[in-house]
Amino acid sequence: MVNYPTRKKEFVKILTSNSNRGISFESDINTTNTYYLDENIALIYKKPTPVKVIDVDFKSRKEALIRKAVFSTPSTTDYNGIYKGKYLDFEAKETKSKTSFALSNLHNHQIKHLLAVKEHGGIGFLLVRFTTLNMVFLYQIESFIIYFNNNNRKSIPIEEFKNNGYIVKEEFNPRYNYLKIIDSIYFKEEDNG
Amino acid sequence: MVNYPTRKKEFVKILTSNSNRGISFESDINTTNTYYLDENIALIYKKPTPVKVIDVDFKSRKEALIRKAVFSTPSTTDYNGIYKGKYLDFEAKETKSKTSFALSNLHNHQIKHLLAVKEHGGIGFLLVRFTTLNMVFLYQIESFIIYFNNNNRKSIPIEEFKNNGYIVKEEFNPRYNYLKIIDSIYFKEEDNG
Repeated sequence: MVNYPTRKKEFVKILTSNSNRGISFESDINTTNTYYLDENIALIYKKPTPVKVIDVDFKSRKEALIRKAVFSTPSTTDYNGIYKGKYLDFEAKETKSKTSFALSNLHNHQIKHLLAVKEHGGIGFLLVRFTTLNMVFLYQIESFIIYFNNNNRKSIPIEEFKNNGYIVKEEFNPRYNYLKIIDSIYFKEEDNG
Repeated sequence: MVNYPTRKKEFVKILTSNSNRGISFESDINTTNTYYLDENIALIYKKPTPVKVIDVDFKSRKEALIRKAVFSTPSTTDYNGIYKGKYLDFEAKETKSKTSFALSNLHNHQIKHLLAVKEHGGIGFLLVRFTTLNMVFLYQIESFIIYFNNNNRKSIPIEEFKNNGYIVKEEFNPRYNYLKIIDSIYFKEEDNG
């Protein structure tokens, strides 16, 4: 998405220290989704990062050059799509912590959105990577809410993910086959068929 | 989305001559979707316009100022979401023509995507507004493909929309209640219950 200007040291530093990990998890999920697309297993896309355009040079409609813009807050989650006729919606996040996932990683409206997804008959979840431990969990929004309602904490301990989430193993391709977990939760009967 | 710099005449001219109508149809659809959201009828969002960022000033991660960027081609369609447990996906377009809708309004991969949506058990369609006639049609992707396969034309005549599409009436709120059409096509049985 972003071209790295090598002259700008600060920019490069920020990318490698913080968001690079984010980009690499995102990139793993994107690779996984591309695999699903190529194999015609599911249609799942990352939504573009919302940008608020402030100033544009229009040479033509197709050759617009944005001169000034800022990133804006996403209305929903990063990923959605369709799998086996079901609407799927999730947010992918990671933490460097070895012990817990801070709720500050999520916006309130993202949680609200995932709950609404469930209410409307879709499948909503989080994919959380504990980067330092190299562990990825799929954590259903219904588990999240139960935990959230019963615990007055600003983070979710890793035990909660271990107890009520599902480990998504790292593989070669697809990198994180999270639909295998979705199968085991939501499409059990079909597996027997 | 875009702030209009009043000094830039060319920009303003382009907006009012071409894309302003696009923005207003888009805005009508967005208003409709907000109504669906507020009434808890469906979760349908417009995806952000994809922007390829070329140069960014990072004061902090939250205060990034984009200095150079271009609009890029969307991978899929503009709108998707969930309604009555079903995955919904569509593209909204308009034409000034009174007689036909030019296929150049759509990208090949958007058609391919909508077909894949249908194949995976979702609902895929186009919303087409004939601006001059003030008529809006919901046109299923399955009708599109039948027409496309049987006609060697670069446009779809309005008769085809009249014969095999569905008129979406303009109302006060929601502006274009296209889910009423979706009900009549896909949820007939529930309407009797």
